[in-house]
Amino acid sequence: MSGMLKRRGFILPAFEIHGGSKGLYDFGPNGGRLRNRVNQIWLDHWTSLGNVAEISCPTITPYEVLEASGHVGEFSDFMTTCISCEEVYRADTLLENDHPNPDSLSKSDLNNLLQNAQPPCPACDSNEWSPVAAQNLMFNTTIGAGKSGRDGFLRPETAQGMFTSFPSLYRHFREKLPFGAVQVGKGYRNEISPRQGMIRLREFNMAELEYFIDPEMPLDHDLAKWSEIDLNMVSESDGEVSISISAAVDAGIVRHGTVGYFIAMTYDFLIKVGIDKSRIRFRQHESNEMAHYATDCWDAEIFGSYGWVECVGIAHRGCYDLEAHEKYTGKSLRARREFASPKEVVIDGWTIDGAVAGPAFRSLAGKVKTAVENLPKATEFPCLLDIDGTAVTIEQEHVKRLQRTEVITGEWFIPHVVEPAFGIDRIIWHILDHAYHETTKQEEDYTVMKLSPNIVPVDYAVFPLFEKDGMGDIAQLLNKQLNSRLGIVSIYDSSGSIGRRYARADEIGIPHCITVDHQSVDDNTVTVRDRDTGEQKRVNIIDL
Amino acid sequence: MSGMLKRRGFILPAFEIHGGSKGLYDFGPNGGRLRNRVNQIWLDHWTSLGNVAEISCPTITPYEVLEASGHVGEFSDFMTTCISCEEVYRADTLLENDHPNPDSLSKSDLNNLLQNAQPPCPACDSNEWSPVAAQNLMFNTTIGAGKSGRDGFLRPETAQGMFTSFPSLYRHFREKLPFGAVQVGKGYRNEISPRQGMIRLREFNMAELEYFIDPEMPLDHDLAKWSEIDLNMVSESDGEVSISISAAVDAGIVRHGTVGYFIAMTYDFLIKVGIDKSRIRFRQHESNEMAHYATDCWDAEIFGSYGWVECVGIAHRGCYDLEAHEKYTGKSLRARREFASPKEVVIDGWTIDGAVAGPAFRSLAGKVKTAVENLPKATEFPCLLDIDGTAVTIEQEHVKRLQRTEVITGEWFIPHVVEPAFGIDRIIWHILDHAYHETTKQEEDYTVMKLSPNIVPVDYAVFPLFEKDGMGDIAQLLNKQLNSRLGIVSIYDSSGSIGRRYARADEIGIPHCITVDHQSVDDNTVTVRDRDTGEQKRVNIIDL
Repeated sequence: MSGMLKRRGFILPAFEIHGGSKGLYDFGPNGGRLRNRVNQIWLDHWTSLGNVAEISCPTITPYEVLEASGHVGEFSDFMTTCISCEEVYRADTLLENDHPNPDSLSKSDLNNLLQNAQPPCPACDSNEWSPVAAQNLMFNTTIGAGKSGRDGFLRPETAQGMFTSFPSLYRHFREKLPFGAVQVGKGYRNEISPRQGMIRLREFNMAELEYFIDPEMPLDHDLAKWSEIDLNMVSESDGEVSISISAAVDAGIVRHGTVGYFIAMTYDFLIKVGIDKSRIRFRQHESNEMAHYATDCWDAEIFGSYGWVECVGIAHRGCYDLEAHEKYTGKSLRARREFASPKEVVIDGWTIDGAVAGPAFRSLAGKVKTAVENLPKATEFPCLLDIDGTAVTIEQEHVKRLQRTEVITGEWFIPHVVEPAFGIDRIIWHILDHAYHETTKQEEDYTVMKLSPNIVPVDYAVFPLFEKDGMGDIAQLLNKQLNSRLGIVSIYDSSGSIGRRYARADEIGIPHCITVDHQSVDDNTVTVRDRDTGEQKRVNIIDL
Repeated sequence: MSGMLKRRGFILPAFEIHGGSKGLYDFGPNGGRLRNRVNQIWLDHWTSLGNVAEISCPTITPYEVLEASGHVGEFSDFMTTCISCEEVYRADTLLENDHPNPDSLSKSDLNNLLQNAQPPCPACDSNEWSPVAAQNLMFNTTIGAGKSGRDGFLRPETAQGMFTSFPSLYRHFREKLPFGAVQVGKGYRNEISPRQGMIRLREFNMAELEYFIDPEMPLDHDLAKWSEIDLNMVSESDGEVSISISAAVDAGIVRHGTVGYFIAMTYDFLIKVGIDKSRIRFRQHESNEMAHYATDCWDAEIFGSYGWVECVGIAHRGCYDLEAHEKYTGKSLRARREFASPKEVVIDGWTIDGAVAGPAFRSLAGKVKTAVENLPKATEFPCLLDIDGTAVTIEQEHVKRLQRTEVITGEWFIPHVVEPAFGIDRIIWHILDHAYHETTKQEEDYTVMKLSPNIVPVDYAVFPLFEKDGMGDIAQLLNKQLNSRLGIVSIYDSSGSIGRRYARADEIGIPHCITVDHQSVDDNTVTVRDRDTGEQKRVNIIDL
């Protein structure tokens, strides 16, 4: 298949005339539009919920943002270098024959296994390896020049720009949860040695939704629409089951209603773009496989020529991300929750005695007051407080008891996030894989791409039976008219037999081929041939 | 205006909670969809020509590609460092008060002027400057790790991926010129000290068409459609003129028909997305301002709060780009031109004498033969040839005369390229600038964004007059139904007076506000209010 995909301009190794570059691919003259249509369908799928807005953030990201998110510290693979030829490899891939699941091993376990197993170097067959080291997978660069130059990275995901945009989103949605932000764009991962074509790229197309919720709010997702659809699910507790999403949520297999709702929405999206529903399954992460902050996580896996491949991750991330940026920046990333009825709160603690503390602490007095009011009732004075990095001693004479009752109407909290993250390239690979049908016709190989009309690169092909006798002119005009319609692409093809032209059209999945023949000149009708059934209908041009 | 754009989520400094980063902007919850719609209209505008295909290439680009294109050597600004505070600046911007056009100066002229004029450092007011040095403006990174790591850059333009994709495009279009490739995506330019907000970004959205033509082919662009439209043109020879595009081409003001056609197409696009036509002009580059290989180049400039700003460049690039990659890689980037009738060519030169040269040159014999057949008739032997970097001596005995007549039916040539390149961020800035209308209403400031309905972030707003008495339910349902339509975004707003809600809707340019009132409950009609006229019509919900 990949030869055909390259020849017909769907997907090609990038910069091939310059020798190419591993992990970088082009979407060619057929793939480019297909990719765009998949992206747009994805965006419409989520924005149609009515409380989800599209945003677009830079791919270049300052060091601080990715330090706050944990990527500077954690986003790495373990690598090792061949002592003999100096080629670099991921330690876990070298050990695939020596351990059932080497990517679950710690650095020291990998190191031990590597030194014991001594796998051969794929490049030079030697088997001496350097100690295993963590290699950060972000592409780094410098923003600006000279003294004002700052470290930056190419984003490993689109998500961080959406978390740092929380204040703007909260304002946009008039401070009312739940709401979401979607973003489609490039993500980057400097793979140590990329393999598997479109499955493991250094630069990839991704699409993420960050959906912000109040964890105390009742969920009102209507799952009835999917009640008759059994999904293939592989759950941590129950293994493989075929079950509707509402039943899976009710049974606690899916641990959160919003996660369940997004599993169903993901299923709908995959069907819409032409993934074969029998080759989709949802696999729950094992508890020890999830990030420590996640409470439930499911992958949508799609079956194709690489086996089952993770193409979508749907994760309940708790308050991890907003909290991390809040801690790092000191800026509030909170939402307000009003209580159903106001609450009385008894305050029983300490405050400062302004007459004494004011002169004593001068410009720090305000901050000392806040700090003292946070001290527990049982505090004994003198005590030492850290005020903006300065140690300040608070004496008994500085403070007095504070006892009062307050009525509060609500509180600020950090929203939780449920995130469906889509690997668009992997999905497109499987769209093509599932659409690809090879048969023979008149003893020759014959390929049909049975792509969904929603995402075909070309909607129509127009063929004049011959170019003479006015047929060429009618076909040219028709082709031009079709192209002038918004969102329609049509091609004109006049070379070779009609059979050869059908074959070329089938190979890129054009749903409808229109032939202009002798009769067309007389009565303005043409034949329209259906790609999948081969049936031909005669219709008037004005009815097209 | 920029305060409003930030507050209402059109355009915001990126990563602001982390202190932001100069030259990086977010498209927020209103700007994100607007940007996407501008991009999609741009793509449809060109692909509707029928011979233009969308492609998508990586932003990470290997060193070799950008060395071949000339960017490694040429894509730079001249910078200088303040001796005292070590801040880095562009030399030309420091000299704006000392020279009418400092960005036209050579490095040594800049250096002389800088040392004479001694402008004050904007940061520390000192006036000692380091010698001027060229600073390449590409963001650099490393692809891969360790020994296999390669130098790469973030692309400065989308164009190079389209040039290197020429073989795939040529195959896709069945080897028939003219054809084009379009690409919308990120470009990067590591500005030394970015200013002017959206006008000068470090990461920007661009959209380029590379249109490949046979320079000997007659042009058949139909400019009649624009014959009644006078464009503002500033030409090298004639200065400011108001003239139709066909007249400008006929008069030779625009030097190439395809350039003229694309100027007209660019004008149409800008109108479609809502640029005010009276604030568009086309300015021809002076001969000494153009790249040496360009034969004609026009900028579309748009007038706004920064004065006239270049937003589109339309350049006839000759065969420069394909030739550069062909020379660097040795791969053919040519198209075939068949002659109207076959030509007889008399060949009178040299070839090898196989019996002698074969054993003498062994594996090189084939290449020696090609080289010898390219030698002029007047060559004297022995002579020295460079065969793949090896100096080979050709003796008289190795060669014999070759004299024959050949009939050739066509030839291979390097296509020429006409390139319209659009700065999407600059265009969006001016869309917002031209749409922004400030008035007062009841003695308060009142803002209306008169955006084209083609690119508004939100298509409808639905207001229940009150949420009680069933009005809220009807409005919620209507809002949901509108959102479920493909490509439609609607918002629900129930807070504050209807006047306040109109004001919020006007501020982000929602074309139609729908109010559900008491009568709606009885007869299923609603009022629809037009943003620009303020007129309200009563219509049945089913007719919306």
